[in-house]
Amino acid sequence: VTRAATAADAAVVAGLLHAFADEFGDPTPGEGMLAARLRPALARDEVVALLAGDPPAGVALLTFRPSVWTGSPVALLEDLYVEPAERGRGLGRALLRHSLDLARERGATTFELYTGEGDTAARRRDEAHGLLNVEPGESEPLLYYYRRL
Amino acid sequence: VTRAATAADAAVVAGLLHAFADEFGDPTPGEGMLAARLRPALARDEVVALLAGDPPAGVALLTFRPSVWTGSPVALLEDLYVEPAERGRGLGRALLRHSLDLARERGATTFELYTGEGDTAARRRDEAHGLLNVEPGESEPLLYYYRRL
Repeated sequence: VTRAATAADAAVVAGLLHAFADEFGDPTPGEGMLAARLRPALARDEVVALLAGDPPAGVALLTFRPSVWTGSPVALLEDLYVEPAERGRGLGRALLRHSLDLARERGATTFELYTGEGDTAARRRDEAHGLLNVEPGESEPLLYYYRRL
Repeated sequence: VTRAATAADAAVVAGLLHAFADEFGDPTPGEGMLAARLRPALARDEVVALLAGDPPAGVALLTFRPSVWTGSPVALLEDLYVEPAERGRGLGRALLRHSLDLARERGATTFELYTGEGDTAARRRDEAHGLLNVEPGESEPLLYYYRRL
């Protein structure tokens, strides 16, 4: 149900990411610009994309960066989206599972993502897959993500 | 008061990062291993380190990754530490300011960091520098950082 995208899938990945931003009112440079950036980035493995469904109705976008603490890559799930009409059929869970497997295959010992406090469905799914927003073994304090745009 | 570290500073950066982990009970591979990883990573610009004080008593570690959304790098402040004896003299603020300036110079339009809910001194400092853990223009919900080790 899920597969890794190649540079040839840039337009499909771009279409899903654009729909994601559009649905949540986030800024997007448009499908054409996203595809133009994704094509070389996917080819050079600067970003990794996974697609779910046939035709694809869900996408996960990951980046990897080095860690001097572990000597192995840190995987970051940048975006995960499933089209509204295809929700509730397990595509999001399948994309998250594939993302975790892919990170492990690439030797990553840390897997990260950000989410909103109010996105309870995503948080339940992420927590069911072993992700924590507290330090291991603790129930508080929470870990916060800060950003300056 | 702050300066960019080069590969020749790997041992100094490693010593400060090791002290950081040690003070907070976080796992560390030791100064020697950190230095061995930092030397090539700093030389290849895979990580960027800033030092504060003379002799150095504070360190900031940053990574940059591409974003298909903006077409420009995302800067992530991975670690920021000042030795206990040198706290309260502005080294942390100077390191954060230098980190923000460096990110801007490199064309980054997004600057990120994670912090613990309970680290109120760091959160006050970060918020004073324009970092938010909510969506722009909103006061809630909070943005959470999730991790699986």
